[in-house]
Amino acid sequence: MIGLSCYAGVMESLMNPAEEHQASSPQTNSWSKIQEPSKNQNPKGGFVLVHAGAGYHSESKAKEYKHVCKRACQRAVDQLKAGALAVEAVAAALVELEDSPFTNAGMGSNLNLSGEIECDASIMDGKSLHFGAVGAISGIKNPVLVANRLLSEAQKGKLSAGRIPPCFLVGRGAHDWAVSHGIPPCPSEKMATKFSLSAYKRNKRKMELAEKMDTGHNQTKKRRQSSENENGSGCLDTVGAVVVDLEGNVAAAVSSGGLAMKHPGRVGQASHYGCGCWAENACNMNSYSTAVSTSGCGEHLIRTMLARECSAAMQSEDAHQALLEAMQNKFISSPFLTSEDRVLGGVIVLRCCRCVEAQPSQNIQGILVEFLWSHTTESMCVGYMSAQDSKAKTHISRLPPGTVPGQSLAIEGGVCRLMGVVE
Amino acid sequence: MIGLSCYAGVMESLMNPAEEHQASSPQTNSWSKIQEPSKNQNPKGGFVLVHAGAGYHSESKAKEYKHVCKRACQRAVDQLKAGALAVEAVAAALVELEDSPFTNAGMGSNLNLSGEIECDASIMDGKSLHFGAVGAISGIKNPVLVANRLLSEAQKGKLSAGRIPPCFLVGRGAHDWAVSHGIPPCPSEKMATKFSLSAYKRNKRKMELAEKMDTGHNQTKKRRQSSENENGSGCLDTVGAVVVDLEGNVAAAVSSGGLAMKHPGRVGQASHYGCGCWAENACNMNSYSTAVSTSGCGEHLIRTMLARECSAAMQSEDAHQALLEAMQNKFISSPFLTSEDRVLGGVIVLRCCRCVEAQPSQNIQGILVEFLWSHTTESMCVGYMSAQDSKAKTHISRLPPGTVPGQSLAIEGGVCRLMGVVE
Repeated sequence: MIGLSCYAGVMESLMNPAEEHQASSPQTNSWSKIQEPSKNQNPKGGFVLVHAGAGYHSESKAKEYKHVCKRACQRAVDQLKAGALAVEAVAAALVELEDSPFTNAGMGSNLNLSGEIECDASIMDGKSLHFGAVGAISGIKNPVLVANRLLSEAQKGKLSAGRIPPCFLVGRGAHDWAVSHGIPPCPSEKMATKFSLSAYKRNKRKMELAEKMDTGHNQTKKRRQSSENENGSGCLDTVGAVVVDLEGNVAAAVSSGGLAMKHPGRVGQASHYGCGCWAENACNMNSYSTAVSTSGCGEHLIRTMLARECSAAMQSEDAHQALLEAMQNKFISSPFLTSEDRVLGGVIVLRCCRCVEAQPSQNIQGILVEFLWSHTTESMCVGYMSAQDSKAKTHISRLPPGTVPGQSLAIEGGVCRLMGVVE
Repeated sequence: MIGLSCYAGVMESLMNPAEEHQASSPQTNSWSKIQEPSKNQNPKGGFVLVHAGAGYHSESKAKEYKHVCKRACQRAVDQLKAGALAVEAVAAALVELEDSPFTNAGMGSNLNLSGEIECDASIMDGKSLHFGAVGAISGIKNPVLVANRLLSEAQKGKLSAGRIPPCFLVGRGAHDWAVSHGIPPCPSEKMATKFSLSAYKRNKRKMELAEKMDTGHNQTKKRRQSSENENGSGCLDTVGAVVVDLEGNVAAAVSSGGLAMKHPGRVGQASHYGCGCWAENACNMNSYSTAVSTSGCGEHLIRTMLARECSAAMQSEDAHQALLEAMQNKFISSPFLTSEDRVLGGVIVLRCCRCVEAQPSQNIQGILVEFLWSHTTESMCVGYMSAQDSKAKTHISRLPPGTVPGQSLAIEGGVCRLMGVVE
């Protein structure tokens, strides 16, 4: 852990320049004081990387996706500048992502088979290693806030009569717990959008048609043939974020409306420990603090435990190579998914350590942040921002032309230095 | 994978002889034909290890606990003898464990805060690496059968219109899915027992008293003080089983009514991938097939991902030492549980590989099974049986006298050879 009293964060270089990146000219080894330390003694500043899902992002909505990523970055950075810890900042980013009607999380989530919205979300704090999650929760605008509240309540210790506080609540029980802890309910009809309702009707027709066509055929054969319809809509757009604050704490969160036309009660990777998100501060055994958030087909991400696998991989020397190998060997070619013809998902990853280029003679230390994203889906929309320059960069990453979604991957990323004066 | 047409399984030796073990005198390198191969060409036979929970087993009910373990072993062995694969046999064992009113699973499960029964269960097939789970499900007598059906349905491939079948369903949705797949509903009131109802009333009084005493004190302090009441009842008795069949396939399952007085919607480790159970056949990367089932405090088992950790540890040379270290370093001293004063849980573990003592000159090959159990709770009730000798051994393992639950551990186990003639 690095204690810093005033600091700055400077975006430095990107391994793979992408469309938006020209906007930020690299500035190396510069820093400036942002503001006085907050009353709660937390250093102020840090870095955030968000995603608006791995799936398919149409050109027509690219602007909206980027815009929500930008706003989410801003929300996290506002928190970091006010002295919030990583876990608070990551929750703030998620609220913004959930509130967008364009993402499949919170407002505007996919409807399930019964035409209802049921959301999954989880959050992990790399400092305490606590985790909170909700699954198949209805009638709550921001599921991540319930997950975050579960996390913070668990940190307070045991309940009356020695009962162990829950870290994972689902369904009606999760809703009632949220409301009893001051999180306001939201009528489900307010969470559906014109877009989600019309997608539901379209999907329902498609399903009925597929089932009609199937009649009289062999059931197993039928099922496999119908798989060709997959991945046609942006139905995999789980959202998420990873944050590092200037104490060096990391946090990660994820939120999802789940697959379109899922069975009621279906819970995806966004609620699953080790699958939707992971955050772990550096310790004796790990040189790097790491944070990961995943997106894509929940069942694929659960069975490969992708968030934790990527986090573990990030302890290797070369972050880019380590993520590439993890995505190839632990996801696309995973022994857990041999029966799948296409393995659909994406991750955002952040790792950090003490900044070796800092100047100890001037009591200046810092944190070197390496951040990456990778996906096997057609596209993935990401955004990132440091609290120092406060300029969000957004990007829709796409698979290389001619490659097959679910069998190939894209990988990009960058480096950022967070610098500050040691107290 | 070892293909065997007719075979026998012989219990050979135990690393730590325990009370019941005298009943089976070691027989080395003997085998006999049991029955003709089944029509489905699966070799018939195998080995099962079950547990009726890590928690506290009173002497007064010891007989009942052992008896249900024995019946569960018998059910699995009946399946194995009829040519069932490991995954079918493990589900059969779980049904018997769930049906006992003495275990905290299925019938007789703990009641939650609202006086309702909500169950968690999961199953994993080491051959296909598929996984099925249900969480907070009500009104179903055997939750493991729903988890097993989810697993088998997922193996059939995609649903209509390319939808990906779920591997994890919760709450009402899980119940409705089960009923629509032919699993009969069971009125909740029939699942409560005199014992579970009186425990609920007692716990409720205890809770109300604790909350009354707390009034006027500092909330955080209160919470921590009240933790001394924990572990007083047999409320941690999740049940589970691990099986290997004579093809060398492993499977694991777990089922739980959850913590007494849990919040409605709370889901514990029994539904959580990597936490409640794990099964993985040997492959290029792993020399041993491994299967694990856990029991204890769900939140501790989730945050340490104990099932998967123990499975990974089992690839080391010395199974006993590997489990000892895993329980010590990945559970009791886990960095994920530093805030916990007592870490409560238990595991049953099975690993197997080709039997080196087999006699290839006579076309005889076999499987060497090492099986272990370990717990940090006061006690753990286990049973095991091979399809050959059909004699179940049962045992209530207890922590060594003078040691503290949650800070110390007990570990025991044995070895069994499954032998057969290669076709």
